[in-house]
Amino acid sequence: MEKRVYNFSPGPATLPLKVLEEAQRDLLALPGLGVSALEISHRCPWFDKVLEETEANLRELLKIPANFKVLFLQGGSRLQFSMVPMNLLQEGKAAEYVVTGSWSKMALDEAKKFGTAKATYDAKATNYDRLPTAGDLKVDEGASYAYFTSNETIQGVQFLDEPKTGSLPLVCDASSDFLCRPLPMDRYGLIYSCAQKNSGPAGVTTVIIRDDLLGRSTDKLPTMMNYALYAKEKSLLNTPPVFSIYIMMLVTRWLKNDIGGLDKMLAHNKKKAAQLYDVIDASGGFYTGHAQKADRSLMNVTFKLPDDEKQKAFLKGAESRGLHYLPGHRSVGGIRASIYNAMPIEGVQLLADWMKEFQKGA
Amino acid sequence: MEKRVYNFSPGPATLPLKVLEEAQRDLLALPGLGVSALEISHRCPWFDKVLEETEANLRELLKIPANFKVLFLQGGSRLQFSMVPMNLLQEGKAAEYVVTGSWSKMALDEAKKFGTAKATYDAKATNYDRLPTAGDLKVDEGASYAYFTSNETIQGVQFLDEPKTGSLPLVCDASSDFLCRPLPMDRYGLIYSCAQKNSGPAGVTTVIIRDDLLGRSTDKLPTMMNYALYAKEKSLLNTPPVFSIYIMMLVTRWLKNDIGGLDKMLAHNKKKAAQLYDVIDASGGFYTGHAQKADRSLMNVTFKLPDDEKQKAFLKGAESRGLHYLPGHRSVGGIRASIYNAMPIEGVQLLADWMKEFQKGA
Repeated sequence: MEKRVYNFSPGPATLPLKVLEEAQRDLLALPGLGVSALEISHRCPWFDKVLEETEANLRELLKIPANFKVLFLQGGSRLQFSMVPMNLLQEGKAAEYVVTGSWSKMALDEAKKFGTAKATYDAKATNYDRLPTAGDLKVDEGASYAYFTSNETIQGVQFLDEPKTGSLPLVCDASSDFLCRPLPMDRYGLIYSCAQKNSGPAGVTTVIIRDDLLGRSTDKLPTMMNYALYAKEKSLLNTPPVFSIYIMMLVTRWLKNDIGGLDKMLAHNKKKAAQLYDVIDASGGFYTGHAQKADRSLMNVTFKLPDDEKQKAFLKGAESRGLHYLPGHRSVGGIRASIYNAMPIEGVQLLADWMKEFQKGA
Repeated sequence: MEKRVYNFSPGPATLPLKVLEEAQRDLLALPGLGVSALEISHRCPWFDKVLEETEANLRELLKIPANFKVLFLQGGSRLQFSMVPMNLLQEGKAAEYVVTGSWSKMALDEAKKFGTAKATYDAKATNYDRLPTAGDLKVDEGASYAYFTSNETIQGVQFLDEPKTGSLPLVCDASSDFLCRPLPMDRYGLIYSCAQKNSGPAGVTTVIIRDDLLGRSTDKLPTMMNYALYAKEKSLLNTPPVFSIYIMMLVTRWLKNDIGGLDKMLAHNKKKAAQLYDVIDASGGFYTGHAQKADRSLMNVTFKLPDDEKQKAFLKGAESRGLHYLPGHRSVGGIRASIYNAMPIEGVQLLADWMKEFQKGA
């Protein structure tokens, strides 16, 4: 069999081997059905069960209260950048955006097409290396909603606690850290995530929405952009991405049964991230992290080497050790080690070892 | 290995076995890369090649002229029901819809949200059993575009020649017969298709658009609904459904190399459809087709048995012979045998044999 490498890509990202093995085993024919999950009808009992289990797994993992709907959509997070304001912005009211990196900035710019949206906070002056402190956020209590991005993949800053935005419905783009930790769901109005980091392959987006907010969706919206219609049709407004949802079912099953839930996943993620941040902090400035220490991401560890030549040599050596897709985003540069839920601790350990070895030899 | 059945589902639909076998072989790790197609970055040379080959295969199969763009989107055909009018409807101009079944009716209703759209033709009076004749179409030459659905999956009527709509840009929903035959591309302004019938799994939609029409897309549109932006970013506006496009690459490769192109595919499809229609026509009224003979679909063969009891017995016997997913849509009833490109002739032959045997025994 082809040897697998450690895939540090920011997304699409590594999936649990057990999930891939099950998908592979059944790819020509699902047991007892004789058709592949790539070609089975979405109007059949098998897929009803896939949808049911995926939702049930998410509800159990995140302790989602009964007054929230769980929806499965296409279009990725960038479609949500439009759908959130198109559905939730109210006549004569603004939306408040907490801008902590590239993705929240892009979401704000998109929202401006559909009404009044403004940055309650913007960390641009420090190149998005930090999160707001409690005093930084002065939200208008009469706004339609407050919006934040829980993890900024490019800059590597992450909210491990929700921003203080008062009583406004809180909307969260959790695309790159969904399911990395338990969430206080009662703090949220809407939380969404594309699958291709922690929950599955590219092509499906989960939206969890408090049901009172569904009343804001009007009939004037394009059908496929109306949260209320998705809720009414239980995500079967048209043919959903069957195979991607099936993989999400397997990933959430793995989180429940193999990992043991989100408390354990969080502990595991903290341990993995610490292995890399500890090397950075002990390197005497050889490795420099992009994010402020208090705001560091557990998912995307961003750092730099002293110069481009060393960085090239570092990446070359990493690849020869089976550690791939480590270059940082062009807007920040340096290295980005994306260590999502499914990245095994062995891969992180190998990377930490290589960082230490490389510094010694440099 | 689990035995495969013949899958007559209207979509998601059966895929070529060769495609599934290759996807299965490489599901844990692509050769030489060490990561699965379910988890590989969309910003890597491998995926650049997947996009390139998929587009090149489509261009070769359909002889797509250079002044057309080939785009890959999410959201299915129902998102196109909105995107077509949102991008192409012009101020003060109407759109002309040829309504030949459930899907074109739904597309017309959606278009009305965004401007003036009207039915140039509507076959409702005869329960959508036929297509317009040349004299039926009186389009307003000053309209924004003319729209039709080349194959109505539910009713089983199909255009094997384009409707005569004068010089208007012709927009076609080819979701359920895309790639079943060669097309005179110079007749089209825009043609789109979700993948889950003839070109791949659910989760990706192909849009082929004449480049002069891209000028109608304005900056006010939601980013993910703007054809011009997809064209500008070569379908990488955000993370595309990597795995679904990879499967589409394999399907289009199969069409080229194993089938030998669309002329051969069409001949093959005609032969398959004739096997079933011949049994219907020779049954002396035991089997009655829904569509008028001249307008019958090569993709979805819709027919009825004398009564519900016989229909139940027929379906039960079919399943015991490995012929699955044959019940018709609730709005038409009866049987629907969907025999898309990838349905092997052996499956169709078995079904034809069972139809003859069942009538004898009835």
